[in-house]
Amino acid sequence: MSARLSLNQWTTRPWTMPEAIEGCARAGIPAMGVWREPLQAFGLPATAQRLRDAGLRVSSLCRGGFFTASEPSARRDAMADNRRAIDEAAQLGAPCLALVVGGLPPGDRDLPGARRRVLDALAELAPYAATAGIQLALEPLHPMYCADRAVISTLAQAIDLAESFPMGQVGVIVDTFHIWWDPDVFRQIARAAARIASFQVSDWLVPVPSDLLLARGLMGDGVIDFSPLCRAVTAAGYRGDVEVEIFNAALWSRPGDEIVAAVVQRFAEHIEPSLGA
Amino acid sequence: MSARLSLNQWTTRPWTMPEAIEGCARAGIPAMGVWREPLQAFGLPATAQRLRDAGLRVSSLCRGGFFTASEPSARRDAMADNRRAIDEAAQLGAPCLALVVGGLPPGDRDLPGARRRVLDALAELAPYAATAGIQLALEPLHPMYCADRAVISTLAQAIDLAESFPMGQVGVIVDTFHIWWDPDVFRQIARAAARIASFQVSDWLVPVPSDLLLARGLMGDGVIDFSPLCRAVTAAGYRGDVEVEIFNAALWSRPGDEIVAAVVQRFAEHIEPSLGA
Repeated sequence: MSARLSLNQWTTRPWTMPEAIEGCARAGIPAMGVWREPLQAFGLPATAQRLRDAGLRVSSLCRGGFFTASEPSARRDAMADNRRAIDEAAQLGAPCLALVVGGLPPGDRDLPGARRRVLDALAELAPYAATAGIQLALEPLHPMYCADRAVISTLAQAIDLAESFPMGQVGVIVDTFHIWWDPDVFRQIARAAARIASFQVSDWLVPVPSDLLLARGLMGDGVIDFSPLCRAVTAAGYRGDVEVEIFNAALWSRPGDEIVAAVVQRFAEHIEPSLGA
Repeated sequence: MSARLSLNQWTTRPWTMPEAIEGCARAGIPAMGVWREPLQAFGLPATAQRLRDAGLRVSSLCRGGFFTASEPSARRDAMADNRRAIDEAAQLGAPCLALVVGGLPPGDRDLPGARRRVLDALAELAPYAATAGIQLALEPLHPMYCADRAVISTLAQAIDLAESFPMGQVGVIVDTFHIWWDPDVFRQIARAAARIASFQVSDWLVPVPSDLLLARGLMGDGVIDFSPLCRAVTAAGYRGDVEVEIFNAALWSRPGDEIVAAVVQRFAEHIEPSLGA
């Protein structure tokens, strides 16, 4: 078992929080990327206790963000929810809060405006996160999600934003599914360096499944060449957990222990050998 | 009627070649982007004659490319087909041949290798195209098509490639659908300058239709802010035809004259006012 493998909880979405924790412990997986929905369903103190009992690290809390609204009350709600997420991350001992920043508000075509509001939101949240000891982890999403999920579309853009803040306050997430196509990706991974807050892996399937939000594959089922990406992230200095994060309806139809077994096997085959040390 | 509106023939895909030509003439549209499939079905001399009779310009021939195969005979076939496409473009009086370069060959995960083969293919074709008086027009496709349609994913990457060749031999296509999300798009349009071989417009729909190849919308039906993109292309010096290229099954289910009427109306509303002169 890799000491750096983390199961992003959404990979075994059908599992409840205690099931996911027990499943990781059973498989010997040392870390978990926790999602807020199952966290709220099972409760924070109970979750924190179970994680401690199982000896599991939390590699990240997923997710904050969705703060591109221009309407003042929607924006206030988003900011309040992000502060709650930061508190939760701190109470779980997570190093970072993953941020999916949000798309264009309904009826809005002003993409540069939405991107400016991301910077404004970060400026408001970063000091709060710093006080809580949580790094905000900006996740560039694949450009196909630009309109409705995240107006941050490339690693370069995420780093540009992050560099407005101290290193420990705002980092970036390198997720193979979102950035594998980018002709500039290796240069940007090197540039991100110590700003890399999290490294997440899943594969790009061909043909692309019709539900774009559930389009990810197990490593090896798609076209991503993981080795050079893993080596680049290691060369950039990242030594943290590597989260396997796969949203896939066919995978979710399988028993959780089978999903975990597949994750462990594919990680050993496609990721671990190129992580170096 | 705008003097710069060109109907990309695939926007009225159910129409045969003579129907498309007659439809443009009937609506007063001055130019057409011609596709090779209907061209081969109706024949080149007959098509050229009908276009002349109707007084229509050809704004581009769609499409060459698909030359990322590594297998020698597949590569030779692709090169031969691209030379035929260049000949056809010349015989039609088209200024350029649109190139959709191709994705990863089946079973292949070497994206940098596929991208190198694009450069090799261009080097082989550019002198041939120059002799024929045809500019090769490299089209960056949206990154969601990187694996299976085009390994050229950004305008920056297309310009980098084009700059290995004389201006008149290799240009780039600015297509709003493919590049609207790019945080670097305005800088790259300015950089493309006289390399802009074609400007194509269609809209990005939300939610994204499940068939990604038929996901485009009429201008105004999606989230793209066309004005700044049109102004940027004009500021870069482009004064050529503006092709409306929409692949959309719902649109194709309507009578051709209705499609054309919608194209003319939306062009007048969303594109023409920002093209300047």
